Amino acid sequence: MKRIELLDTTLRDGAQAEGISFSVRDKLAIVETLDDLGIPLIEAGNPGSNPKDIAFFEAVRGLRLKQAQVAAFGATCRPKLAPADDPQVQSLLCAGTATVVIFGKSWRLHVTEVLRTTLEENVRMIRDTVAFFTGQGKRVIYDAEHFFDGWKADASYALRTVAAAAEAGASAICLCETNGGCFPEEVAQATGEVLAKVGGRSAVGVHAHNDGGLGVANSLAAVRAGATHLQGTLAGFGERCGNANLATILANLQLKMGYECIPEERLPTLTAAVRRVAEIANIVLADDMPYVGRKAFAHKAGMHMDGVRKCAHSFEHVAPERVGNERRFLMSEVAGRSAVLERIRALAPAMDKSDPAVDAVVKRLKHLENEGYQFEGADGSFELLIRKTLGTYRPLFALERFRIIGEHPASETTGAAAMIKVSVDGADEVTAAEGNGPVDALNHCLRKALERFYPGLSGVHLTDYKVRVLDGNAGSAAKVRVLMETTDGRMVWSTTGVSTDIIEASWIALVDSLEFKLIHDREQAAEASGRHDKIEQ
Amino acid sequence: MKRIELLDTTLRDGAQAEGISFSVRDKLAIVETLDDLGIPLIEAGNPGSNPKDIAFFEAVRGLRLKQAQVAAFGATCRPKLAPADDPQVQSLLCAGTATVVIFGKSWRLHVTEVLRTTLEENVRMIRDTVAFFTGQGKRVIYDAEHFFDGWKADASYALRTVAAAAEAGASAICLCETNGGCFPEEVAQATGEVLAKVGGRSAVGVHAHNDGGLGVANSLAAVRAGATHLQGTLAGFGERCGNANLATILANLQLKMGYECIPEERLPTLTAAVRRVAEIANIVLADDMPYVGRKAFAHKAGMHMDGVRKCAHSFEHVAPERVGNERRFLMSEVAGRSAVLERIRALAPAMDKSDPAVDAVVKRLKHLENEGYQFEGADGSFELLIRKTLGTYRPLFALERFRIIGEHPASETTGAAAMIKVSVDGADEVTAAEGNGPVDALNHCLRKALERFYPGLSGVHLTDYKVRVLDGNAGSAAKVRVLMETTDGRMVWSTTGVSTDIIEASWIALVDSLEFKLIHDREQAAEASGRHDKIEQ
Repeated sequence: MKRIELLDTTLRDGAQAEGISFSVRDKLAIVETLDDLGIPLIEAGNPGSNPKDIAFFEAVRGLRLKQAQVAAFGATCRPKLAPADDPQVQSLLCAGTATVVIFGKSWRLHVTEVLRTTLEENVRMIRDTVAFFTGQGKRVIYDAEHFFDGWKADASYALRTVAAAAEAGASAICLCETNGGCFPEEVAQATGEVLAKVGGRSAVGVHAHNDGGLGVANSLAAVRAGATHLQGTLAGFGERCGNANLATILANLQLKMGYECIPEERLPTLTAAVRRVAEIANIVLADDMPYVGRKAFAHKAGMHMDGVRKCAHSFEHVAPERVGNERRFLMSEVAGRSAVLERIRALAPAMDKSDPAVDAVVKRLKHLENEGYQFEGADGSFELLIRKTLGTYRPLFALERFRIIGEHPASETTGAAAMIKVSVDGADEVTAAEGNGPVDALNHCLRKALERFYPGLSGVHLTDYKVRVLDGNAGSAAKVRVLMETTDGRMVWSTTGVSTDIIEASWIALVDSLEFKLIHDREQAAEASGRHDKIEQ
Repeated sequence: MKRIELLDTTLRDGAQAEGISFSVRDKLAIVETLDDLGIPLIEAGNPGSNPKDIAFFEAVRGLRLKQAQVAAFGATCRPKLAPADDPQVQSLLCAGTATVVIFGKSWRLHVTEVLRTTLEENVRMIRDTVAFFTGQGKRVIYDAEHFFDGWKADASYALRTVAAAAEAGASAICLCETNGGCFPEEVAQATGEVLAKVGGRSAVGVHAHNDGGLGVANSLAAVRAGATHLQGTLAGFGERCGNANLATILANLQLKMGYECIPEERLPTLTAAVRRVAEIANIVLADDMPYVGRKAFAHKAGMHMDGVRKCAHSFEHVAPERVGNERRFLMSEVAGRSAVLERIRALAPAMDKSDPAVDAVVKRLKHLENEGYQFEGADGSFELLIRKTLGTYRPLFALERFRIIGEHPASETTGAAAMIKVSVDGADEVTAAEGNGPVDALNHCLRKALERFYPGLSGVHLTDYKVRVLDGNAGSAAKVRVLMETTDGRMVWSTTGVSTDIIEASWIALVDSLEFKLIHDREQAAEASGRHDKIEQ
């Protein structure tokens, strides 16, 4: 199988996305996630650029990685300086990595207008810096910044810059589509020209961005033209419209184009790895992300569901389990009885399709949808609905009463607060909490009251909270639907509540959210002890 | 200039996205937005499929569109039925549209396994249905569902199905990449083969999806192969990973590839149009969406900002204003000063563009936008912002304090209530009200308190109330933006508020709403008495 070497730059280019700021601990967790998935090269920042990066490179040496190499990233030496005399170049050595990524200029405009040096001097800087690092025994990947724009403006100069890096011993030349606005045809043609020029000496790769919506297409076009190295970020994070999405690229290459990027047996962990990176970055992953998004294999149209049931690949380009994702039949008013049966069987595999419980669930679903509920985005609440209708549900706590208070203008001593009284197996708990508004106060208050009985709740937190006003023209008395997404770091589940009172709608979703977690914990514990028994026998 | 005909299917395929559910009013607002942008064809659902769609087609005939045509969408007749005898076919006529889009099968698998009929009969259904509608004087666009998968499985059969539609008089044959997993090379090759076969009779188009992250690339590949018709959704909404993103496609085609899709002068309204569609759908638009996302021209890396300042296209593939977006330096933002000046002059026509008040408004606007405000859909609040900054605003009441209380379970005597103390010209009013939840209670309470001083408020009521969670992953402590629409039966105005506390955000929007009304009433009275004076003189 032909191999494509992937370099993930979530820690460097990805960190330039608005809203992303990684701690050293975050960075280490991402390195472990990428290593585990099988990504061979992980690019991190410049150890000379800030103290956080110095601490990171120290800490990363202590990780036991399975296969990945971490590479430091920096610029060529500055004009009129020898690499050995440039502190930025020297600091790259401190990272102590076997591989360094060096970027330099290929576009005349950038050399003369941004760097403000001569074309000749720029080539000297590239050649000397690459030679400096190969002389230190490092493997050098040379990133040709703005290569494609430079090639369009002056192909012969752009090619000269990468030839200099190749001649100085760079093991790979990576052509960067820095501004993200080129087309696949251009990428393919330029990649071919570079291969013809330096292909005998160095591998050739491409680093694409998504400003034209073509990050994936440009990366694949490069591979078709002969590139064997690709850079991107696993979840597509990056400045402006993001870097090329490595998860999409590797799934396309490996499932459909006959290339190997990561070990075949790691492919089913792809979805979990992308979600973990998003979780660490504290970014809500796009639901519609190819292959790994929550909606990527979600079917809503009745005709599509029917087709998938008859023959899965009639409406699915790949089987979701190959990338560790799952098929979802959205429980909407258009969904039929058989979709409901399928969901029931996930909990009660022996359920007969003529069992009256199936009709009871369908009836309850229709009733709630008339009330304004929508379960297509609330798997957790739908599962609880099934459990409640089947009679396998036992409430894990009873609410006696809650009260919320809000005051405006808020001061240190006033503001939003919630009081609650719950009981668990006859034991009462009364407590209170403050918050950013009454919903937040109530959320904190309920968790606080229950953690005494269920310490497992301490790792649980909301990752998304949405409000949809259902009948806008009823004004402030309109019905609202609240949608919550919760995680315990392992599972992600979503729950919903509907009411004319936003506090009550939030409460309903919140209770479902915590009950879902507690029920799953209990079942897992039962299963684990069941296995334990067997071993003892 | 070469023309590409665009068809937007937000109302049909887009509505199959998880989480989207359009009211008739929403659909009409989307039609107006697309018409305004210059999209020539708008596909809506099947008028026979549900009562909401029947009401929509009735209402849409009442709209005065500038240029767009609305098209009804439906399937070919069923096996063994003549089109005239098939109620689904008949119902399409009821829509009363000049253009109908008819979809049929091209993939053997779907004919025999999903439709469960013969290959011959399927071709008959296509031919007869297209002929039926052309016989009724309709323009027919034929959608060849799963064309590319069908072509890969049995090219000769797939080509036969589209040839039947072309021979029966379809004005365009649209090849659908229904499962979204094909590559640009495949799309280009198949499109070329279809053009060779039916190009003399019909235009050829492509309808792409994004399951492989290639929706845009596949659409552009089709154009390069000769296609002149493209389908997609303006914001990329659609089942699973979405439809091909029409905004990205049209910007690429029109700014870089030399095609015309919409009138050139409408291109700078692209960003606003996409955001409006997302707002109507109540979907948070991806910040990193090419061309139109909030981050699409946001620069974070210091080196990039420096480069852009020296020479904008050093780090931007196109100028943001060409698509109506704006460049953002994430540390220090730059404003759309002339747009603001225009709004100020609506209130103060003599305002000089160098007046310091203009800068003051721009500064205040940028500050509030950073806080999460968005004034695109809140003209009333923006007008108040200008009045406040210009110093022409005088508060019409002062809030001393309000308090809201909610209780659950609610009973006849408990539930949501609000208490308030306001003063108007030194006179205090203390009152209370109940409501459906605390926001509704507060709304009633404030009106009740003010009506004593301003009886004109009695005819005022909310017509829309929307809540948007801004940073979902902060869970219940997330910031929310409330958008209210109010009417007095004559004017309609919209106001907004932002806070981490939904009660407070609603309060801010509510106060703006009532103040807007009172200020306009006062000015109208002053104007009327001025005119009156004149008449008396």
